[in-house]
Amino acid sequence: MGNNDNNNISTKNQTSSKYWRCLVFSILLNFAFFGYNLYFSVVDDGGLSWSRGAAGEAEAVASISCSGHGRAYLDGVISAGDGLPVCECNTCYGGSDCSQFSPSCSADADGGNPLFLEPYWRQRAAASALVVSGWHRMGYSFPDGTNISPELERHIRQLHAVVGNAVTEGRFIVFGAGSTQLLNAAVHALSPGGGGGVAAGVVATAPFYPIYELQTEYFASVDFQYQGDTSLWIAGGNSSSEKKNLPDGKTIIEFVTSPNNPDGKLNEAVLKGPNFKAIYDRAYYWPHFTPIPAADDGELKIFTLSKLTGHAGSRFGWAIVKDEDVYNKMLMHMQLNTMGVSRDTQLRALKLLKTIMAEGGGRTIFDFGYQTMKSRWEKLRKVVSVSKRFSLQDVSSHYCVFSGRVRESSPAYGWLKCEREEESDCYGVLKAAGIIGRGGSVFYATDRNVRLSLIKTRDDFDLLVDKLQKLVSAEQDEEEGGGDGNGIEQHVANVTEYQPLRRRM
Amino acid sequence: MGNNDNNNISTKNQTSSKYWRCLVFSILLNFAFFGYNLYFSVVDDGGLSWSRGAAGEAEAVASISCSGHGRAYLDGVISAGDGLPVCECNTCYGGSDCSQFSPSCSADADGGNPLFLEPYWRQRAAASALVVSGWHRMGYSFPDGTNISPELERHIRQLHAVVGNAVTEGRFIVFGAGSTQLLNAAVHALSPGGGGGVAAGVVATAPFYPIYELQTEYFASVDFQYQGDTSLWIAGGNSSSEKKNLPDGKTIIEFVTSPNNPDGKLNEAVLKGPNFKAIYDRAYYWPHFTPIPAADDGELKIFTLSKLTGHAGSRFGWAIVKDEDVYNKMLMHMQLNTMGVSRDTQLRALKLLKTIMAEGGGRTIFDFGYQTMKSRWEKLRKVVSVSKRFSLQDVSSHYCVFSGRVRESSPAYGWLKCEREEESDCYGVLKAAGIIGRGGSVFYATDRNVRLSLIKTRDDFDLLVDKLQKLVSAEQDEEEGGGDGNGIEQHVANVTEYQPLRRRM
Repeated sequence: MGNNDNNNISTKNQTSSKYWRCLVFSILLNFAFFGYNLYFSVVDDGGLSWSRGAAGEAEAVASISCSGHGRAYLDGVISAGDGLPVCECNTCYGGSDCSQFSPSCSADADGGNPLFLEPYWRQRAAASALVVSGWHRMGYSFPDGTNISPELERHIRQLHAVVGNAVTEGRFIVFGAGSTQLLNAAVHALSPGGGGGVAAGVVATAPFYPIYELQTEYFASVDFQYQGDTSLWIAGGNSSSEKKNLPDGKTIIEFVTSPNNPDGKLNEAVLKGPNFKAIYDRAYYWPHFTPIPAADDGELKIFTLSKLTGHAGSRFGWAIVKDEDVYNKMLMHMQLNTMGVSRDTQLRALKLLKTIMAEGGGRTIFDFGYQTMKSRWEKLRKVVSVSKRFSLQDVSSHYCVFSGRVRESSPAYGWLKCEREEESDCYGVLKAAGIIGRGGSVFYATDRNVRLSLIKTRDDFDLLVDKLQKLVSAEQDEEEGGGDGNGIEQHVANVTEYQPLRRRM
Repeated sequence: MGNNDNNNISTKNQTSSKYWRCLVFSILLNFAFFGYNLYFSVVDDGGLSWSRGAAGEAEAVASISCSGHGRAYLDGVISAGDGLPVCECNTCYGGSDCSQFSPSCSADADGGNPLFLEPYWRQRAAASALVVSGWHRMGYSFPDGTNISPELERHIRQLHAVVGNAVTEGRFIVFGAGSTQLLNAAVHALSPGGGGGVAAGVVATAPFYPIYELQTEYFASVDFQYQGDTSLWIAGGNSSSEKKNLPDGKTIIEFVTSPNNPDGKLNEAVLKGPNFKAIYDRAYYWPHFTPIPAADDGELKIFTLSKLTGHAGSRFGWAIVKDEDVYNKMLMHMQLNTMGVSRDTQLRALKLLKTIMAEGGGRTIFDFGYQTMKSRWEKLRKVVSVSKRFSLQDVSSHYCVFSGRVRESSPAYGWLKCEREEESDCYGVLKAAGIIGRGGSVFYATDRNVRLSLIKTRDDFDLLVDKLQKLVSAEQDEEEGGGDGNGIEQHVANVTEYQPLRRRM
């Protein structure tokens, strides 16, 4: 055996030994990885334990495809087919995955479902997700003995400070199941009460949100009564300085909606003075819908999550109250009516507000909301502005403390008017054309006006604009062609023709 | 070089080659593990994506140690120290981890916080966890246009079928924010209404839950009035067949609580006949508290999640209604009052009911609840039975359709009575001895009775029994020693002495 062979043997021995060490090391690493994976899959599954299953279930439901025209929810009706919750489709879409569009279906611009904000939350799935333990807040009260979450109240105050739409410093805050519950709580609290005195009169200025009357009449209290339009309380119908004389001990409670529902106007109280009290319904007083000229510093203003975050189903609102006596009365109302607002709702609202505050200093959702509404108004005006048959309300411009500049309103609703004298039933005109709005008579105006909801899903808005466009086009064809008065009939024929499925992923 | 060397070289070559192949394989395996871990930690983190963060946050809060004498919640006030929610401690416990027991602190047996069920849910953390997406049910309605979850309604009917405590077949179900909201909804619905007729009279039989009067009077409607005890409506105060004659058009609405709050009796309506209507408050009609002799098949019965699962903070209840007209009126009440119950609450309630139904055919929670209450009553009776100074209400026995045997009641409350003639203020007697109960006068009985809550945490119950034991022991010492009437004073001295911290992990 020569040196070369010995060297070769020696080298091979060293190589073999090196492979052996590498192999041992590599195998140890294999065991380490294996053990790590085993640990986390059996014991701790990615660092989670008891929440893992629920999280997986929620993600599975969220990933159910509804063709971009609907969504499935965790508590939806279960499909017999796959045991999963069904897709709940946008109007005019159907089928198990919401991909079937019905061309002859009417656009639904009736209700105020604020789904225009749904994309905002879908885009922030991680930030806005909430995990609720089985033992979360089982008790009746928070540690301070109240049924009002201190953390949620704190976030509400923070948000108002960011937006600048309401003074909260030194004010009391009451929670309610939507502003709906707080409206009547406020009426109770502002009424002199005691049953023996003169019942307070509850009034509002047409057009106004009908709940004020319906609710007040339903609760038919000995302490307050719905007493009509504010104009009835103005002598000569001219100005608030010429109010009618009130009977002794009479209080008038005025609902002021600002921005107004249905027309978006930044209203002020009409009746002012001793014994005239105002409840400011500020549901729409957010940059999505209006410039913010100033922070509301009034006695009593009510807000709702519905029109801030879009979570109408959560039933959460709050009142900001100056007077401590009024505050205490509203608290008592909440206690006797429902023992406060659900702790589940308060937890959800807190999560949503935290998500808002964590982005852009709390401003991003308003940029999102405003851009969406602005864009929708541009499209709407583009269609309606060429029409002589229809008109939309003017929108005002104001300096906005939130955006730091003058801007236009972008109201939640179009307040459409039929201009042709013979078309006093504008609701009927639109209905025949495949658009379901809400007739002005619902708001104590006339059906010459129709409220069109602009805050629903994109599908809803696109369909509304589509149908309006057809109406306006028919109007223009009529004018150009001399017309034979059959514009409506022709339009009905038009909308029943086949339209290709619209796909949006 | 001989054959041996060649063989050796050959063997070594083969070995080296084998090591090399093993090494290559092992290295590839490492890459595979690495890639797998990288994928799941960066992209999918254990199979989860958007819910991961929220799940981790919830688990972190749940794992905050409060010494077994409290708990931290996701929406609790944030501690300045560690940025985590603070521990919320059981009565008489304090400190940042609830480990500080205050010996001189009074036992709080006042409220009906149903935390006795908290351990049931903690033990089922995985089954009862709920993940809510940021876009969950933003809209006002379910697909059927109502604000009542079909899945939740379905589970409620299933549960009643398991327990056998209420007929739901062919009945309508209305949801409310706790039974609290439904009580007044029912009064509205059963009143003739219209404002012009005779106001319905609302009555109940003492001792009764004061909300019936407080709520009815607060809502001071023109359609109904609180009109006192049922005995006022019985001619000669003898039997329901000798009711006083009602004025024309007069309706009497009787609240019947069964089992009763405060004394646990299985009451029946006292006033029956035309124009006498009954609202059965069945809050406690579950096996935790009572045998179930039969399924309630009455016109209108109301249940609450509070006393079924213990989730009083969720504010969820339901009414089971026979008459469709009454049902529609209650729906209208819910719509005008709050536009239904929060979708967050309905989702939570569904999760809780699903958790119940998934175990033991829906029976396990009732075994848990009954065993807990039975054990507590045994301890309570053991202490009180040797006393001549105090007595507890008798509990009745009935055949129970749920358990298939005769069993005793295990009421939510002890209805303690001071037997000594001079101790007509039993509430004061107990208060001086470090027990805060709820005086009988709150329930339109006298303060000779005191309601003691037996449904709170184990800490609360143990403390109550502890203080009662001391009272009874002092009584016996007094009797044995001839006594000098200083039993109470001695007891007060006793309870202020140092007591070792009680630890339960």
